[in-house]
Amino acid sequence: MISKNRVKQIQFLHQKKFREQNKLFLAEGIKTVKELIASRPEVIEELFATVDFIKENEPLLKKNRIGFSEISEKELGQISSQTTPNQVLAVCRFFEEGDYSFDFEKNFSLYLDDIRDPGNFGTIIRMADWFGISTIFCSPSSCELYNNKVIQATMGAFMRVKVVYLPLNEVMDKNKPAKIYGAVLNGKNLFKEKLEPGLILIGNEANGINKENLELINAPLTIPSHSNNGTESLNAAMATSIIVSEFFRQICV
Amino acid sequence: MISKNRVKQIQFLHQKKFREQNKLFLAEGIKTVKELIASRPEVIEELFATVDFIKENEPLLKKNRIGFSEISEKELGQISSQTTPNQVLAVCRFFEEGDYSFDFEKNFSLYLDDIRDPGNFGTIIRMADWFGISTIFCSPSSCELYNNKVIQATMGAFMRVKVVYLPLNEVMDKNKPAKIYGAVLNGKNLFKEKLEPGLILIGNEANGINKENLELINAPLTIPSHSNNGTESLNAAMATSIIVSEFFRQICV
Repeated sequence: MISKNRVKQIQFLHQKKFREQNKLFLAEGIKTVKELIASRPEVIEELFATVDFIKENEPLLKKNRIGFSEISEKELGQISSQTTPNQVLAVCRFFEEGDYSFDFEKNFSLYLDDIRDPGNFGTIIRMADWFGISTIFCSPSSCELYNNKVIQATMGAFMRVKVVYLPLNEVMDKNKPAKIYGAVLNGKNLFKEKLEPGLILIGNEANGINKENLELINAPLTIPSHSNNGTESLNAAMATSIIVSEFFRQICV
Repeated sequence: MISKNRVKQIQFLHQKKFREQNKLFLAEGIKTVKELIASRPEVIEELFATVDFIKENEPLLKKNRIGFSEISEKELGQISSQTTPNQVLAVCRFFEEGDYSFDFEKNFSLYLDDIRDPGNFGTIIRMADWFGISTIFCSPSSCELYNNKVIQATMGAFMRVKVVYLPLNEVMDKNKPAKIYGAVLNGKNLFKEKLEPGLILIGNEANGINKENLELINAPLTIPSHSNNGTESLNAAMATSIIVSEFFRQICV
């Protein structure tokens, strides 16, 4: 059971404004929530689940002292942000921001300059996790991490990759990367450069990298295309995955 | 002006069933439709546009003998499949299927085995175009090319990349690729293999490659991940882009 009032409160968390006011967000689905219980149980404020989920996971919930309420499929549908809700929804507290130092002498990371599409953003976080990038940086105007679509698209990676929102100059003041790469239209061939640890700037889906930030790039890169084709650009998330995988190949394999 | 009856007919084309019955699909937005007029005017059956589009493009439309109707923003909103319609909608005829031979001795291509997500499918077509893949193959169960979301996600690449739906054995009977690569969980390290022209199998988002097709792979590949991470997989479109870019790097750069 869930009260009408609680339903409303949770529905409010579908909106950014209320997430930020309450410092709460939603994580949904069996896989994501079970991972959350295993790796970050401290962020779960309350859990709503159908009888199937509870039957299966009651010992786990009790062991981790997670408060839960059994609700019907219909009630889950009311509070869920998903078109096909999957047994469980967790109301979670925002992560602690904590330290954002990063060793750019040994590792590479991303700076997402005003990325906007939640699906792109979420799959980039998932991909960063795959390639072992522990922290990624975003401009303050970028898409919100706790957006429901972002959380779901990360497939759990939001628990492992730290996402830090900071103006680029503050990232640089603090961490002093020597190499500032940037994905641009007329840079050097990604596949012919010797890539080193550093920070990789990725621009907005429509407008690319902000002009001020462009000037800070000291190693512009371009993904070469087949000559004479008509496609002018790649999807931002796909371009990012191609660039990151090439850094990984050269530096980590 | 557009009649109520025509509005209904076009709205029906938002559904796969009616697209297939009529062999018609919709292409929308200034950029996509202008590219279509420039490169494939013969597929446009009828064009609906607001006054702004017509003012700007009337000579182009007349030169290409494209029938058009001026409609209001409101009318465009009624027939559009987009949340933010952009001046123009074209009703188009399905492309001719034509020949599907492919020279696997010189080139590489993709076989998408039951890809389902329109966004993934569309960005894969866009990426294939970027890297100069002229034809891609899909299992008959895969997502429909003429789905509105696919068409929009390709950013025009659907006009340049031929998409052929065929069971894998028919692709092989006809084109006899020597190398059948497949993206699997326990294959050889993508970055350490010497890659050659051939066919690359990409599986379904949730279930991977169909069991029958798995057996036809003679060169299984895996994108290496950072050790000890928690992410079990990459988004299907991102994994495809990483694999294709590595083939491109080794074979074409």
